[in-house]
Amino acid sequence: MSKLFDCVIRNAHCATAADIFDADIGIKEGVITALGKGLPEGETEIDAKGRWVLPGGIDGHCHFDQPTNDGTVMADDFLSGTRSAACGGTTTVIPFALQQKGQSLKAAVADYHERAGQKAVIDYAFHMIVSDATETVLSEELPALISQGYTSFKIYMTYDDLKLGDREIIDVLSVAREEGAMVMIHAENADCIAWLTERLLKAGKTAPKYHAESRPMLVEREATHRAIAFAELVDVPILIVHVSGREAVEQIRWAQGQGLRVYGETCPQYLFLTAEDLGLDDDMEGAKCICSPPPRDKGNQQVIWNALESGTFQVFSSDHAPFRFAGNDGKLATGETPSFDQIANGIPGVETRLALLFSHGVNTGRMDINQFVGLTSTNVAKMYGLYPRKGSIAVGADADLVIWDTDTVRSISNDQLHHNVDYTPYEGIKVNAWPATTMSRGRIVWQDGRYLGTPGMGQFLPCDRPTPAKPKVTAPDPL
Amino acid sequence: MSKLFDCVIRNAHCATAADIFDADIGIKEGVITALGKGLPEGETEIDAKGRWVLPGGIDGHCHFDQPTNDGTVMADDFLSGTRSAACGGTTTVIPFALQQKGQSLKAAVADYHERAGQKAVIDYAFHMIVSDATETVLSEELPALISQGYTSFKIYMTYDDLKLGDREIIDVLSVAREEGAMVMIHAENADCIAWLTERLLKAGKTAPKYHAESRPMLVEREATHRAIAFAELVDVPILIVHVSGREAVEQIRWAQGQGLRVYGETCPQYLFLTAEDLGLDDDMEGAKCICSPPPRDKGNQQVIWNALESGTFQVFSSDHAPFRFAGNDGKLATGETPSFDQIANGIPGVETRLALLFSHGVNTGRMDINQFVGLTSTNVAKMYGLYPRKGSIAVGADADLVIWDTDTVRSISNDQLHHNVDYTPYEGIKVNAWPATTMSRGRIVWQDGRYLGTPGMGQFLPCDRPTPAKPKVTAPDPL
Amino acid sequence: MSKLFDCVIRNAHCATAADIFDADIGIKEGVITALGKGLPEGETEIDAKGRWVLPGGIDGHCHFDQPTNDGTVMADDFLSGTRSAACGGTTTVIPFALQQKGQSLKAAVADYHERAGQKAVIDYAFHMIVSDATETVLSEELPALISQGYTSFKIYMTYDDLKLGDREIIDVLSVAREEGAMVMIHAENADCIAWLTERLLKAGKTAPKYHAESRPMLVEREATHRAIAFAELVDVPILIVHVSGREAVEQIRWAQGQGLRVYGETCPQYLFLTAEDLGLDDDMEGAKCICSPPPRDKGNQQVIWNALESGTFQVFSSDHAPFRFAGNDGKLATGETPSFDQIANGIPGVETRLALLFSHGVNTGRMDINQFVGLTSTNVAKMYGLYPRKGSIAVGADADLVIWDTDTVRSISNDQLHHNVDYTPYEGIKVNAWPATTMSRGRIVWQDGRYLGTPGMGQFLPCDRPTPAKPKVTAPDPL
Amino acid sequence: MSKLFDCVIRNAHCATAADIFDADIGIKEGVITALGKGLPEGETEIDAKGRWVLPGGIDGHCHFDQPTNDGTVMADDFLSGTRSAACGGTTTVIPFALQQKGQSLKAAVADYHERAGQKAVIDYAFHMIVSDATETVLSEELPALISQGYTSFKIYMTYDDLKLGDREIIDVLSVAREEGAMVMIHAENADCIAWLTERLLKAGKTAPKYHAESRPMLVEREATHRAIAFAELVDVPILIVHVSGREAVEQIRWAQGQGLRVYGETCPQYLFLTAEDLGLDDDMEGAKCICSPPPRDKGNQQVIWNALESGTFQVFSSDHAPFRFAGNDGKLATGETPSFDQIANGIPGVETRLALLFSHGVNTGRMDINQFVGLTSTNVAKMYGLYPRKGSIAVGADADLVIWDTDTVRSISNDQLHHNVDYTPYEGIKVNAWPATTMSRGRIVWQDGRYLGTPGMGQFLPCDRPTPAKPKVTAPDPL
Repeated sequence: MSKLFDCVIRNAHCATAADIFDADIGIKEGVITALGKGLPEGETEIDAKGRWVLPGGIDGHCHFDQPTNDGTVMADDFLSGTRSAACGGTTTVIPFALQQKGQSLKAAVADYHERAGQKAVIDYAFHMIVSDATETVLSEELPALISQGYTSFKIYMTYDDLKLGDREIIDVLSVAREEGAMVMIHAENADCIAWLTERLLKAGKTAPKYHAESRPMLVEREATHRAIAFAELVDVPILIVHVSGREAVEQIRWAQGQGLRVYGETCPQYLFLTAEDLGLDDDMEGAKCICSPPPRDKGNQQVIWNALESGTFQVFSSDHAPFRFAGNDGKLATGETPSFDQIANGIPGVETRLALLFSHGVNTGRMDINQFVGLTSTNVAKMYGLYPRKGSIAVGADADLVIWDTDTVRSISNDQLHHNVDYTPYEGIKVNAWPATTMSRGRIVWQDGRYLGTPGMGQFLPCDRPTPAKPKVTAPDPL
Repeated sequence: MSKLFDCVIRNAHCATAADIFDADIGIKEGVITALGKGLPEGETEIDAKGRWVLPGGIDGHCHFDQPTNDGTVMADDFLSGTRSAACGGTTTVIPFALQQKGQSLKAAVADYHERAGQKAVIDYAFHMIVSDATETVLSEELPALISQGYTSFKIYMTYDDLKLGDREIIDVLSVAREEGAMVMIHAENADCIAWLTERLLKAGKTAPKYHAESRPMLVEREATHRAIAFAELVDVPILIVHVSGREAVEQIRWAQGQGLRVYGETCPQYLFLTAEDLGLDDDMEGAKCICSPPPRDKGNQQVIWNALESGTFQVFSSDHAPFRFAGNDGKLATGETPSFDQIANGIPGVETRLALLFSHGVNTGRMDINQFVGLTSTNVAKMYGLYPRKGSIAVGADADLVIWDTDTVRSISNDQLHHNVDYTPYEGIKVNAWPATTMSRGRIVWQDGRYLGTPGMGQFLPCDRPTPAKPKVTAPDPL
Repeated sequence: MSKLFDCVIRNAHCATAADIFDADIGIKEGVITALGKGLPEGETEIDAKGRWVLPGGIDGHCHFDQPTNDGTVMADDFLSGTRSAACGGTTTVIPFALQQKGQSLKAAVADYHERAGQKAVIDYAFHMIVSDATETVLSEELPALISQGYTSFKIYMTYDDLKLGDREIIDVLSVAREEGAMVMIHAENADCIAWLTERLLKAGKTAPKYHAESRPMLVEREATHRAIAFAELVDVPILIVHVSGREAVEQIRWAQGQGLRVYGETCPQYLFLTAEDLGLDDDMEGAKCICSPPPRDKGNQQVIWNALESGTFQVFSSDHAPFRFAGNDGKLATGETPSFDQIANGIPGVETRLALLFSHGVNTGRMDINQFVGLTSTNVAKMYGLYPRKGSIAVGADADLVIWDTDTVRSISNDQLHHNVDYTPYEGIKVNAWPATTMSRGRIVWQDGRYLGTPGMGQFLPCDRPTPAKPKVTAPDPL
Repeated sequence: MSKLFDCVIRNAHCATAADIFDADIGIKEGVITALGKGLPEGETEIDAKGRWVLPGGIDGHCHFDQPTNDGTVMADDFLSGTRSAACGGTTTVIPFALQQKGQSLKAAVADYHERAGQKAVIDYAFHMIVSDATETVLSEELPALISQGYTSFKIYMTYDDLKLGDREIIDVLSVAREEGAMVMIHAENADCIAWLTERLLKAGKTAPKYHAESRPMLVEREATHRAIAFAELVDVPILIVHVSGREAVEQIRWAQGQGLRVYGETCPQYLFLTAEDLGLDDDMEGAKCICSPPPRDKGNQQVIWNALESGTFQVFSSDHAPFRFAGNDGKLATGETPSFDQIANGIPGVETRLALLFSHGVNTGRMDINQFVGLTSTNVAKMYGLYPRKGSIAVGADADLVIWDTDTVRSISNDQLHHNVDYTPYEGIKVNAWPATTMSRGRIVWQDGRYLGTPGMGQFLPCDRPTPAKPKVTAPDPL
């Protein structure tokens, strides 16, 4: 007679986004079916030895296998990307299905399903990127795709090949409101950037470090304010992604104080890097840290920490956008010393995200373990309609679990990482937390420093309407 | 052979401060020992029928059996107070042990233990009220009492018989920092109130409605700002209690944005009452709604709702301060038409708190069920050191549970309440949520409209150091 | 032998933007040549009888004889417009030379000189309106025209036939910075307005009152924020014109607090009208008050008063944009009941501007007489490069003077006004200040209720670089 | 036959707080009686040679001959103090008549009149310092003294021998409101300072540099907020003096934006010194720069500059509080290495105030000449009821005039100053503006580097009710 549980994790010191409890975790067919003291024996047994057992991370912002049109190639596909994620404690990723201008959105989604193929090691969903808000996209494709489980999409206020005009933004927000979808917004003002870039290039200021000068804080503040105004106009929730510093945070806090449903995301680069990492003088090494918005300074790092701690941000993601530094399809694909605007935008980080925040956020006392779980897992699941299947340790949830080792101090080293990029911007940063075991739907994919995953075992996850985008119901009259 | 569980609640649609899950709840010796699908049969069985099952409410701000020196008598003692709480879905209360000026703090605590005696129906802890910050109190009594489980205390910036001077406030905050205690602050400027009151009385403006004019928003804003400055000076967390409107909220939000650990509490009166409820002209009925700070207006109610929804407030309490309206020991104890400053401050609300917020907060879509659980239970447990024993549905927690009926619309009526007060300020307000069953450590104390509690079954709970007041540890250097 | 003065005004109780003094004013050839006690007799003598003598008003924002392309006709040309101004105490106007899309800016300026012809009763300068920022306009016409005395220009962020895109705005700001010109910005977001208008019309909401709903405060706030960001980017002063309410004021105050040179203007309609003046239901009378931004509500009026009093605004103008209500070339030119978006935007006010602010600003104690002079005259002269020839009572300045009667209470009535419009939005509002005498370069153009001007006596004024737009020089190092 | 003018200043390039004009200035009996082109010859003639001629400075905040009770002696009395002022271009000073606790206010005023005696070189008025708000002071002395020309007074929120409690502050503000007086407030929280000081001393941190740590920004911010709240309560204008940095500025700007009449003053030390000037380690030299609030840092200096430029501050004063560094009655009177709290608070600056602001404010382009005149003279005259006799170049005003030399670059050196202090905190700072000639009521007191004053020629000036404190009158109803 078969046992009640396929696996029981004993002596788990569990945390959710709100709670801490010690329990055994009973797993059956990849799902948590019981939490309790002294559960009956399972087919397999794991002893967590009193270590933290947390829900697996959900990375709500990462790019895999996106084609570019400038000769660069994204270094990670759905195999290396999900492998890297798993080894860092992430059990669900939500990469993007990018619509090219002129392309059908449906075709874009189909294309990315093909790219994912049987490669994924862990489960995944898709955000769409809407870059061409045609009448067909607005009235047919978006509603259809949303109802089929693609319930979030990103729009850009910058990048020539991606950006939407103001009216298009308003129109896609309207569709999001009608259909209950979540819109992620990359908020930087394209015209300001173009004007500054022209002036810098004309002045011969082409080195990587000028990337930061071409996108100063005001560029992000303005676009953030504008995006909030549009959301207020349409009365729809939005998420401002990869917020980098004080002025954008102030806009978001203002909106939240007004009662607007404006959410915020930040990423490790805004906690651990500064504009100085873009290099000195004509140093091309700085290209490794080129991403947008650019990292700011120490003062802004502190503001970002505060915004994480105080709940201004709901989501902490990697914005993993992997390009190799070396080679003719990497950061310098367009030449030996390309000007900063010709260098691929984006840095890797899907594997290091959790360890960095755990070590420097939780283990320093800046945030508690529940905040960590919320920012890296539970809130992400809710924000994008994966909850309650993903994002918690609860009866009925998938057994996506991480047992954490917080006893060992490691230096981050690209040697030890599993992505397909030849560097990490976080090289040498010390961490005192790393997954001992990562489990995806009950199967161990990472243990004691060994990758144990199987390509194709990761499933596509159609998403529900996100919780924050659901309509309000009516209460009885107060009198 | 005895069964594994004393009681199993079947078909529970559970919510915690972060999660939602469907499970059976297994209870043994008053503690939740398992959550799972298809748990074995218990000694007793309860069918939740798919209804919401939530952690019992924790009321972190209520007054029972406090003596006064003006002839009034608090209508509720530890029996009627805890009975009323239980019938409204609250399973833990934290009333105050009030130090009189000149009194030893230790003696005050002993006195209130005696008052509680064997009366309590549900579990309780004590906040202290420090009104006399003598050298002995600061250097001996407070440290000793904190280590004995009285880990939070309230201080007043107004009321002649209670208020501390600025230096005293700084000194008690210093002790709180040293000892890891949580300080609750009643923030209103005493001198402004005194000056306004004198002018109003001199002008013959004595009716209850002038109570609101004697304590305008600026009085609360100023004291809130000052309290925040002192907390910043000492580097200690504080909780601003019963926040009533925009200007105080703005101060708290400013502080949180600066990275200060400043927390906020509000109460039903600031969501459901306005200054107009203090009466017209010389109407004495308004005395029923006299409390401090006074209710404001509709605009401020909206600000308070926003602050609950956006996470500016962590705690939602009743500030139950029960006085009868009629009789010579009630609101009008000092005469037939006492001036507003001679009327006892405080209104009842321990029983109606949860139903009001559930109906008008959750069931209108203003907040989700997790926020409700956090504001009314989990956050309170953490704020005052009762977590994880109280405040959640989790393995190892006390089985303090409420099964909610959200199918019935009721009008709040004082007839149906179980406190010892002859009115409720919320008379006639409709609610569509009320506890069907309240369970305290596994024992049913309220079911289907019947009170089933037993005086003396409630236990005193010594508190741990509150989570937010715990010291930060050090992370490895980033490089 | 000719006398020292052509005219001496005796017993003048003078005010400038900073000072108050009692003096005789000696005038020679249209210029103030002496201020003193007991000046020698002039060719003519005027007794001011101790009344306020102030610099003549300068209206920095008015529209005369602008062609439209929808069948409406501006009711005032340079004769009726300047006549109306003079009778209301204004001695200089700065109307617009509007570039049509596709038109040369130079041609536009020439066209308006022709329109002015020999009509003007008082002196005038021109702002340009740049609606087509071609390469020629940016690199040739603007620099040339600025150096020829057209040193300020207005740009629009709304209206299809006028608005500039973001990049165009940045480019014209760059030219302004290079050339030392002042840019006035009409800040409303065109796309938001278009989206709202479409929805309102689709819902059959076409009456004048929906004009206000189509341009809510957020539309103005967003554009104001964006304009400020562009000015910060380019590092150039700007003036936000016709600011209507709280949210835009907050943006301007924020910018000023950051040290940005962001100036603000408001107009009588935001002090004396509200959205309710746009009518009830389908009432077409509301068309009389259609202007953009629309009047808001009483709360916003108070904010605008505060911003005038506290120095947030530098300039108070009329935005006189005169259309008749009746007739087939007036407000309803496009039909009997045109939808709100088909009704000409703009209201008259060049004659009533000063009396309204004097009566309800100075005579109520809200502002002092110096602030009044600054807002209506001195600051305007400086903002647009007419200072020190215009804008003050000082030796060397033009004798543009107004002797004020503040003893008589009048009701504003269109009968008494001298524009060519068949209504005034201020009908019936009481004022207790009106010019007794208006003098333009020493000649009386209005006295005791009689218009005494002569068309053609008004001169075109080439403008200097505005004071606030002048570059900063360098100080010695502090050490 | 006597000439029309005792003196005519030719070729004056004049500036007032609003205007710039070129004129001859005719002076008769110490008063400006004419401004004009080609005035008739005077008894004496001065050629200004086209240089700036400005109203003499008014120093609204300086301390002369105040007794202390710790062995220190103020180095300047009414002779050396007014002499130093005159040589720096200041023609009116308003020192303090300080009430000791227990002393009658009337007696204090009489005492300071005696101290002034026949010493003053330039005109002077008195602010009172109210340190003991007894019933007699409130109901008799203050009203009487205000009506006798002492229309402004300062109160302290810190310093044991001076500070008022909150209720006293409210009470004196009430008197100010009734009587139309201006209240200057030293805003620092006494209890915070005491608490910090105790801790620093206990930790052996006694060197001058710890003075800054004992009075951090929050100490000033809190008191500023509180003072504003009291002014709002009582509905009376106040002036926050010597504002030192961002957080206090933000409070003042907030108040102004609310429509409250809250004014601000700053001083040279907050533009030119930082906390680093208080010394390193145990260096006692830092004692020279001890003043309260303490200088902050470069970032705060920039905020103070912004607040001057944007009109947040109305008044720029020296807060001259002169103590010698050497000698047994100076800064170190209480010992060789006194702890920071035993060192006399205050620095000299009455002579350098104008040159510093002119050079680094006007000549750098940060502010225009009109702002300079307003901040240093006109606004001060209005703020304290000396206008229009003092504060401008206008017909009827006293001939208090300064001809400025802006062609010479000087290094500030204590050798060149005329106070009685043995150092200046501004030693070595370069200036490119210094008075060529200072004239007090038509008499030259400083010319070409020579002091030409006569003790006793300075007159006591009874003050009118300050302009900003005057009551508002009522306008006609708008309809």
